[in-house]
Amino acid sequence: MSDSFPTNSVGLVTPQVHHFDDPLTLRSGKVLPAYDLVVETYGTLNSARTNAILICHALSGDHHSAGFHSPDDKKPGWWDACIGPGKAIDTTLFFVVNLNNLGGCAGSTGPASINPETEKFYGPDFPVVTVRDWVNSQARLMDRLEIPKWAAVVGGSLGGMQVLRWAISYPERLDHAICIAAAPKLSAQNIAFNEVARRSITSDSNFHAGRYLELGTYPKQGLMLARMIGHITYLSDSAMRAKFSKAVSDYKRDSSENSGRDLSTGKLSFGFDVDFQVESYLHYQGERFSKNFDANTYLLMTKALDYFDPSVDFEGDLAKAFENSPCKFFLMSFSTDWRFPPERSRELVTDLLKAGREVSYLEIEADQGHDAFLIAIPRYVDALSTYLTRVHKELEVNAT
Amino acid sequence: MSDSFPTNSVGLVTPQVHHFDDPLTLRSGKVLPAYDLVVETYGTLNSARTNAILICHALSGDHHSAGFHSPDDKKPGWWDACIGPGKAIDTTLFFVVNLNNLGGCAGSTGPASINPETEKFYGPDFPVVTVRDWVNSQARLMDRLEIPKWAAVVGGSLGGMQVLRWAISYPERLDHAICIAAAPKLSAQNIAFNEVARRSITSDSNFHAGRYLELGTYPKQGLMLARMIGHITYLSDSAMRAKFSKAVSDYKRDSSENSGRDLSTGKLSFGFDVDFQVESYLHYQGERFSKNFDANTYLLMTKALDYFDPSVDFEGDLAKAFENSPCKFFLMSFSTDWRFPPERSRELVTDLLKAGREVSYLEIEADQGHDAFLIAIPRYVDALSTYLTRVHKELEVNAT
Repeated sequence: MSDSFPTNSVGLVTPQVHHFDDPLTLRSGKVLPAYDLVVETYGTLNSARTNAILICHALSGDHHSAGFHSPDDKKPGWWDACIGPGKAIDTTLFFVVNLNNLGGCAGSTGPASINPETEKFYGPDFPVVTVRDWVNSQARLMDRLEIPKWAAVVGGSLGGMQVLRWAISYPERLDHAICIAAAPKLSAQNIAFNEVARRSITSDSNFHAGRYLELGTYPKQGLMLARMIGHITYLSDSAMRAKFSKAVSDYKRDSSENSGRDLSTGKLSFGFDVDFQVESYLHYQGERFSKNFDANTYLLMTKALDYFDPSVDFEGDLAKAFENSPCKFFLMSFSTDWRFPPERSRELVTDLLKAGREVSYLEIEADQGHDAFLIAIPRYVDALSTYLTRVHKELEVNAT
Repeated sequence: MSDSFPTNSVGLVTPQVHHFDDPLTLRSGKVLPAYDLVVETYGTLNSARTNAILICHALSGDHHSAGFHSPDDKKPGWWDACIGPGKAIDTTLFFVVNLNNLGGCAGSTGPASINPETEKFYGPDFPVVTVRDWVNSQARLMDRLEIPKWAAVVGGSLGGMQVLRWAISYPERLDHAICIAAAPKLSAQNIAFNEVARRSITSDSNFHAGRYLELGTYPKQGLMLARMIGHITYLSDSAMRAKFSKAVSDYKRDSSENSGRDLSTGKLSFGFDVDFQVESYLHYQGERFSKNFDANTYLLMTKALDYFDPSVDFEGDLAKAFENSPCKFFLMSFSTDWRFPPERSRELVTDLLKAGREVSYLEIEADQGHDAFLIAIPRYVDALSTYLTRVHKELEVNAT
């Protein structure tokens, strides 16, 4: 059956669970006595153990970044566009390691897991985890897998923040930091959107202070709203216009100006039903997401974003944070990304250069907003591919 | 006591209620058999009845645009920055007419009014009203006040859309159309934000399909969320940064980069309490708004925005809509407004020029985002003042 998968797919993949019982002290001071991390790997670790790449996921991602979980699986992993044999992150060259982060809801220990101390769902008792905590847990996974050094750590958005944290927390344990569509820290506007999303969830009457799983309920409406808000910020205005240009419409207009609207009086609801395609699209996205994601995890992920600012230990000077990071950096951003716009990546580049680091930076013209980092945009994929080919050549040179 | 009001204030003002019992047919086809409009006027109508200015309010505005309702009133009307003796809209020169639009919740007939047919609150039975319907009701008010022609119709945001509609629906009944921070129609992103705001309200368990007043409840959380979402879109990212630069912080950073955050580990909640000033600011704004505004009115106002597109009767060609509008147009926009950015005003200018209209356009450099139109920014106020001084001179010339 797996013959039916595309030839450039990693094909059928199976997650593994790694249990850790060394207590993990979190940035908050709280201690997680034991935890599981669910992991997928693609490709083969070479005998020198030098060709491993760590993929860090963003807000709603997980360990399943490529391939399929069953022969009938219609939808591949979230970054299948970039990971596979012959793809930008080439699984014939690299051993690709993916995990679901702590606090997640796809198999790693998180709020929807059972707390062994109480034998109930963790729910709101699951501690707030930060990017730093994730990177610490990823380093333990690295030890478990007996990988001395990552050839590269790669991630977009919140994943890119983990990449930056790797370069600061474990500077000797990665050769390349590939940070896509990220920011040195959140803007007030970013935090504001996150807070409204959180409040949508917590003010849902089914939230029950986070104990909904115990009570057999679910804050579905709140999570839907949160996702709808998030989704607006992932898409550019122009991407939305393009997406909704196919609205049935009984008057002609330039499709570039069309926002999926049909304002002819006869077709309007003059009520609060959906009138425009963009509304039903958002409903669909919110609905789908709210079926598959844990609301407490959403809260944790947005807080990890808000708290991210590695400059905090360096008197607010981010350049200082990177002074002892010998790895090479590759940053990319997307022209219409208004969540983490190119100027935020340029701030990072400036600080990295100030710290004397080797940095490559590429701004990709793309219409898709923040979501662009998940899409196989040719210039973006080519750039990532070219960079990683060089990384692989370095490995071969070093091996000889 | 009114001696204590500033000398450039219109001082104590008293709203009047005008009852209309000519049935009003709405764009939806529904008929409003009778309705009240609550009105405030400032200044004096001259004997030729030529110096009247109509102010059209935006989403959350009302008839109280300037002055105070009582001697202890601390807060003047919503556009007091621009309306008063010697101000840009000079009440010593002009007779300024303000009303609360139909569907509003400040005294005009709306969802929170009693439906005479049922003797219950209208609630969700109040019909959806559009910009066109408002302008029709404003024209009736104009007849009632025996004003043959407005010297100018002025409005910002949704108010600016009413200005445009005046020029199309009643082209012979205004001399000047002053349209600030508006757009020819909403973008898909604008509609998306409105829909999330509406959904926040309708999914509140206290909404009860809009019959909350009958049941003595109120969808306060939903309305708070809706306002928080709106508020983010009214402020620019830079305005937010500036507003929240005074956070107590134990590390130094450039205040222009500060977003009101204090990320030193000791001061973070590591929970879901408020960590950042921007969060408490949004809570405050949402809370205050949710006490004074009707949720059903909020739904109606956002739908009026979504439905606005005067090109719809002109085969999608907005220029054609203005072909028979002899009035002069003055448009302004603000550089950091990302809700209705300058490019949207420039689209309007392009279509007005294509229609052969006389247009002045000014783009104001301002940090305050969409909210700038409510603020006494010197260049903005000066421009409005200069324009209206010319309008007044025209009146004097025509009178001689």
